[in-house]
Order: sequence, then C-alpha cells, then structure tokens
Amino acid sequence: MGAAIATYLVPNNGKLEQKAEQIALGLTVGSWTDLPEVDQQQLAKHKGEVVSVQEVSEEQGLISISYPSVNFSADIPAILTTVFGKLSLDGVVKLIDLDFTPELARRFPGPTFGNLGIRNLLEVSERPLLMSIFKGILGRDLSFFEQQLRAQALGGVDIVKDDEILFDNPTSPFEQRITIAKKVLQETEQVTGETTLYAVNLSGRSIDLIEKAKQAVYLGASALLFNVFTYGLDTLQALVEDKDISVPILAHPSFGGAITASASYGVSAPLWYGKLLRAVGADLVLFPSPYGSVALERDAALGIANELNLPHEFWKKALPVPSAGIHPALVPKLFEDFGIDSVINAGGGVHGHPAGATAGGRAFRQAIQATQKGIPLIEAAAAHTELAEALRIWGGAS
Amino acid sequence: MGAAIATYLVPNNGKLEQKAEQIALGLTVGSWTDLPEVDQQQLAKHKGEVVSVQEVSEEQGLISISYPSVNFSADIPAILTTVFGKLSLDGVVKLIDLDFTPELARRFPGPTFGNLGIRNLLEVSERPLLMSIFKGILGRDLSFFEQQLRAQALGGVDIVKDDEILFDNPTSPFEQRITIAKKVLQETEQVTGETTLYAVNLSGRSIDLIEKAKQAVYLGASALLFNVFTYGLDTLQALVEDKDISVPILAHPSFGGAITASASYGVSAPLWYGKLLRAVGADLVLFPSPYGSVALERDAALGIANELNLPHEFWKKALPVPSAGIHPALVPKLFEDFGIDSVINAGGGVHGHPAGATAGGRAFRQAIQATQKGIPLIEAAAAHTELAEALRIWGGAS
Repeated sequence: MGAAIATYLVPNNGKLEQKAEQIALGLTVGSWTDLPEVDQQQLAKHKGEVVSVQEVSEEQGLISISYPSVNFSADIPAILTTVFGKLSLDGVVKLIDLDFTPELARRFPGPTFGNLGIRNLLEVSERPLLMSIFKGILGRDLSFFEQQLRAQALGGVDIVKDDEILFDNPTSPFEQRITIAKKVLQETEQVTGETTLYAVNLSGRSIDLIEKAKQAVYLGASALLFNVFTYGLDTLQALVEDKDISVPILAHPSFGGAITASASYGVSAPLWYGKLLRAVGADLVLFPSPYGSVALERDAALGIANELNLPHEFWKKALPVPSAGIHPALVPKLFEDFGIDSVINAGGGVHGHPAGATAGGRAFRQAIQATQKGIPLIEAAAAHTELAEALRIWGGAS
Repeated sequence: MGAAIATYLVPNNGKLEQKAEQIALGLTVGSWTDLPEVDQQQLAKHKGEVVSVQEVSEEQGLISISYPSVNFSADIPAILTTVFGKLSLDGVVKLIDLDFTPELARRFPGPTFGNLGIRNLLEVSERPLLMSIFKGILGRDLSFFEQQLRAQALGGVDIVKDDEILFDNPTSPFEQRITIAKKVLQETEQVTGETTLYAVNLSGRSIDLIEKAKQAVYLGASALLFNVFTYGLDTLQALVEDKDISVPILAHPSFGGAITASASYGVSAPLWYGKLLRAVGADLVLFPSPYGSVALERDAALGIANELNLPHEFWKKALPVPSAGIHPALVPKLFEDFGIDSVINAGGGVHGHPAGATAGGRAFRQAIQATQKGIPLIEAAAAHTELAEALRIWGGAS
C-alpha cells in the first residue's frame, strides 16, 4: 500500500504533537479513541499517521503526516484535497513537501522528453540550453512575429517561446504562428546548422486543449507552452499522457505566486514548481530566477531546480528554466547555480542587445562557451563583438 | 470592446501612480513612450489603462487597471494569466477584485440552477435551506452510507453532501452511492413529503469528468460536489455548460486557502469563492463560516455571500453555504448574517445530536422555523424536544 507523506510548516504552539495527531485523524478517519474496536479494525488501514514532528524555532514547527493511498485515487486533485483541502483553510499552515511512496509515484508519468529527450531533439549535449521569448508581441501581426522569430533563431537560441500573455487572436492566429514558425525555423537551420524549437502558447478552454494540442503537433509545432496553474496540474498531466501530443511541454509559472509567495500559507516553491510539475510531466519548468526584479529567493529557486534534476526511480529529469532579469553577464552565475542541465532564458537580455536579437543570442552563446571553458567573460569579449557589446550594456565584472 | 478591471492591494511605496503605470504597460504592450507613433496607433487598443490609484493607509494602496478584452480569450485561464500571471510572482501584491464589463461578463454562464432553480427542485421557497454532510465515512461500506443518508434525510435535511475526501473507492463505489441514494431518498420522501438532494463527489481525472458526470446524472444523481480548486475554474465551467449534466453543482473550497489565506498575496476570498465561482456557474458555494474553528473573517464571509447574491445582468444568484462549526444555536446568527437565500450546513451539528442525525436535522429545522417567526430558540425549545436537546449540548443563549 502506498502513501503520500505531507510536511507542513505551522506555528509552534508548544503542542505540535497534539496538532499533528489532530491533522492525521481529522483529515482521514475523523476520530479514533472513541471508536469501538471493531470499527478501529475496519478503519486502521485508512488512518493517517504522524511521521515526525520537529521544532524549527520558537515560532515554527514542521509536521509530517502519512496519508494511506487507499484513501484517495491516484490523481493530483484527490491528493491535494486529501493533504491540503480543508487544512489549507484552517489557520496558519503551509504545505512544504509531499513525498510519494514508489507505489504512488509510479502512477504519475513524469516528463515524456525530459532533459535528455530535449537534448536529443536539439542535438545538444554539452552545454546549458538557451531560450528566448518574444518581446512586445501583443497586438503585432504575423510579419512582426516572423521577423522576431528569425532574429532569435539566427542568434543560436535553442528554444523560442511565446509570450504567455499571447492568446488566440485574429492578428497572429495560433495555427499560423505554428506554420510560419515551422517554415522560418527550417530556413534558419539551413543557415546555422542548428535546430530551434518554437513553443506555441496552448491556451483557450480546458475542454478543447487536447484536440488543439494535437492539431498544433499536426501543423508542425515543435513544443508547447502551457500556463498550467490557471488550468490545473491534472490538465497538464492529461496533455502529457496523450501519445499524439508528441512534443515537449514547457510549464509557465503564471499565477503560481498566488499559491507560493506567502511564507506562511500556500505551497512551497520547490514542491509546486519542482516536484509536482515533474510528477505530472512538464519537460521544462519556468520559474523566477534569483537575480532579476521578479525574483525568487535563491534557496527556493535552487530547491526547484533540485527537484527537477534529482535522480528518480520513475520520472525523467525536467529542465529548470530560471527566468527574468537574465543577461549575458549573468551566465557564469547561472552556470554556477544551475549547472549544465538547465536553460538560460532571456527576453530583454536578447532583444535589448544594441545590435539586435541575433547579436543578443550570439552574446549568450559566446558567454556560455567561455564560461564552460573557464574563461572570464571580459577576456572572451576581446574576440567576440556581440559579447563585448552586451557586457558594455549590462556590466560584466565576473 | 470589453475589459477586465483588476484591483490590487499593494504596499504603499509613495509612488503608487508610477507602480500602476508600470503594471498597466508591463502586463500589456510592454513599453509605450519609446514606441514610434505608428506603433502606438497599432497598439493603442491593447494598452492597459490605470483606472484608479488610492492610498488605503500609510502602508497600503489599491490600484485598479483595465485590461482590454482584445488581449485575451474569454476564459478564466487567459484572464488570470493576463491580470495576475507574472504579477503574482512580482513582490507583494494581492488580487482583490476583478470586474468584467458586460461584453465580457456575458461570455460566462453563471449558475444553471442558482438559488431559484434549486428551490424549484426542492419545492422550498420561504426559508434558508438545510444541508448536512456524512461523518466518518472514509473506509465505511455502503450499508453505513445508506444508514447515514436515511437518518439525515428523515431529519428534514434538503441536501446531503459527500465528504470531499471521499473519492472513488471499492468499499463505497461512486455508481453505487448514486443508485442507493436514489432509492433511499425516494423512500424518505414518502415519509417526510420532502425532496432531498444527494451531492455525490465528482472526482478522478479531469479528462474523465464530463463522461463521469453524465453517467452520474443517468444513474440518478441529484447534485454534484466538486473540489473545483484542485482542478481549475475552467473545468467547472465546462461541467456547467454541458447540457447533459442537468443537476446543481456544489463547489467545495478544498485547497482554496492556499490561494486566499494570506493578507498580502494571492486572491481575495470574495473574488475567489464569490464572483469567480458564480461566473463559471457554481450553483452553491461552500466556504468557511465566520463562527467555527475553521474560520474566515466575518467581512470576508459576508463578502463572498454578497458576490453570490448580488443582482447581475447575466448570472443567476448562487447560494452561499457558510460551513464549519455550525450547530442549531447558531441559526439566528446565520439568518441575521446571511439571510433567507443561504444554506445552513452542518456535520457535527447534525450527527452529534444526542438522539442521532434525524433528531439533529429536526433541531435545525425547528431552529430555522422559530428564527423566521422571531421566536427565541430557548422559547421554541419548550415545544420541540430535538431543539431543546441541541441547545443543551451546544448552548442556546440567543
């Protein structure tokens, strides 16, 4: 029999053991000591168990409870309701972690492609990947789209993603973005010798997503971007599990801050963006980098990457994409923090290059190459105009 | 052209106007003053506009931004991403309200049944409704289920709901709970002369929900309970819009605290449980009452009820169901706070009655009747054994 083991951060009221027992019973069989023995026998396998109780400080404590998987169906909605349904509404409590026993973990798909699968598609193994995002695309037409895509791909960007706020619209329709991107990226591959993926924003009504994603793949989409938290984790899992949707899926953290930003309530960032998105099968996960203005604390950002990258019995590794505030001068820091199995993602850091987005992409690739060779950027810049210009703009004392 | 107008609570940094402008541009066209005039003309209809900026205190301010609906498709995921996607990750900010212009509001269904539709089903017009919930049902078999259901219905309960943590399970399967409930409630109607609805917990994988709900209706389910926030608001909307799913839907607030509990982050309770659930079509909405141990602040609870009950051009009224900690002695307070168009919902307050759940239901009905007649409960108890016993247990100085 499997189980889900939930860990909660709660105020330290001096009675943590008692609180833990209340949760373990309250969220499963309801009561125990007053039950007749025959009922206790019947219900024993359903009873939540306190795994551990720990004082973190005078103010806070950690409580871990094991919920038998016989209590719920093996899907995220049932698990979230079991471990944090009513409890999320019951005073100060944050869901910090959720461990699945192997019997339960194997019920979740994990990424279809994952780190290695995406590297195979791109034929890139020995460096962090490079992603960039369209800028100021809202309200622009398809020629603007085409031009920006081409510029980014020519700069050596591995994956170009839609802006997450670009939905179905008459000016740059979903289907046409896909077919144009296919054509453009075939052309740029002739020039650069490199594959570039375009992640189109899969949006609209939940009920249409599967068919729409299949249509996207049929039209030649090479990846999908998905605002998973405005839909639901289980909706992403359904996309992942559909064999006809045979392209990598990038999970965007849109709306995620509503769940993870508070220190006292909601769900921890490593669990929400890391473990759970990997469980349901995101191939790449975007989250705020610890560097930019839209920032996550460094521990939280590294915690997410760690959850995506940890060896796992059933789940492939997903690629962490720390985002926001990234420019070429940050590459050594990104490499140090997130390592080779990560994606360097920039918007302004590519498009804001004085010589344009192609030069912006090149500056990043030059920075990545130098960093991997152990060459200081400022030194590498002597041989690379694009990098030199980027460092002049964004600073490069690294 | 419609719009969604979002209101945010933010720290008062003394530069609220500037912050508002940053949000209005950052979440739409990105930049403005540095754009060529020809681009400004093309993008004008996409530009977010600051509607108002207000200092609430030295510490906090309110900012309202209007997002043109041309920027997004008319669905909750696109709207949440537009107004609170990246922004939810960007420092201290809480989404307080979201107004839809009529052009946008009419794109959402609102409740199919709503207050009047449910009253028609029950043939009850002149009093608050009474709901109760199974107790200690996890791990129990169908005979336990049948017995509890019968006892509650015989007590005059209008709607009996599944425990939200009861999922598909071999001991009390979904289909059999429905067919047994149908039989039991036909029998109790012969005795009481009153209709009782049973809200079965619709759970499992998102992709199966529509078919499962149709099957439930086919088997005779009279209502559905749905843990909407562990799935997604748009998933509920799809259930509501399916014409074959012709029964009322109760939205459960499970996991909602992860989004609403913080004072500084996430989404306000009146918007999340009130306006948005009504927009997508919940007929009844459960939320923590302001009285019990699992409590919401009174203002927030009343704010939810207000959003569900306000007259609206396109949406029927939904029924508020303040829950947790409810017992018969609280009925006058509930009536005062939530009025006739609400549902009085109890678990322990029905099952914990010394003479059992049937007596527990009767005590509530007696309390409701007395309250509506303006008779103090303690006085009414003289003629009603069940109420008298309830007041002895739970106190009745009201």
